[in-house]
Amino acid sequence: MMANMYDEAYNLEKAIRGSEEFQKLSELYEQLQADEMAKKLFDNFRQVQMDLQQKQMQGEEITQEDIEQAQKQAQLVQQHDLISKVMEVEQRLSQSLTDINKIIMKPLEELYGTMES
Amino acid sequence: MMANMYDEAYNLEKAIRGSEEFQKLSELYEQLQADEMAKKLFDNFRQVQMDLQQKQMQGEEITQEDIEQAQKQAQLVQQHDLISKVMEVEQRLSQSLTDINKIIMKPLEELYGTMES
Repeated sequence: MMANMYDEAYNLEKAIRGSEEFQKLSELYEQLQADEMAKKLFDNFRQVQMDLQQKQMQGEEITQEDIEQAQKQAQLVQQHDLISKVMEVEQRLSQSLTDINKIIMKPLEELYGTMES
Repeated sequence: MMANMYDEAYNLEKAIRGSEEFQKLSELYEQLQADEMAKKLFDNFRQVQMDLQQKQMQGEEITQEDIEQAQKQAQLVQQHDLISKVMEVEQRLSQSLTDINKIIMKPLEELYGTMES
């Protein structure tokens, strides 16, 4: 018998939790939580990024000052060992999840593709 | 040993392909492809829906005529046995995939949640 979609989704969920990227990121987040200065720097960086994204999405003008602030924050963060590790592993996990999403969405894409001819 | 994320993603992909909703929708799409009139009606309906969505997203005004056209198309489609079946199964498959996505994204949500305190 064919395995149930939901059962397989839970298996995948477990595999994501058990993945090297996920485990590593959990560990790094814990370290970040325990380091007040680093946490503050990281939160500020995220905030600046999100503000910029929101401005772009709402079609607001991005000023020279905005760009400089974002660059300054990015430099600070890149020089910080723990934070740059966090960002690298976040990037890896995000890439894996993007790949996984593509795998899962393939049946639907093919199905819709047959309808466009 | 922990199962690999990608292996589990492929297992899930197979389960999606084998699911009752997916199989049923494939079958209905084939029937729709073979019925020229129904296919045309369905494509028109989709086009009207997409045009409306695009207008909304771009902040354009939705006219009374747009609304009436969409309603007329929706009525035609609801009265059509095959097309209304297609739409019902599409809705079910879409709901399952939304549920599955929630299951898979849970680890990440929890992880990010720990960072917001």
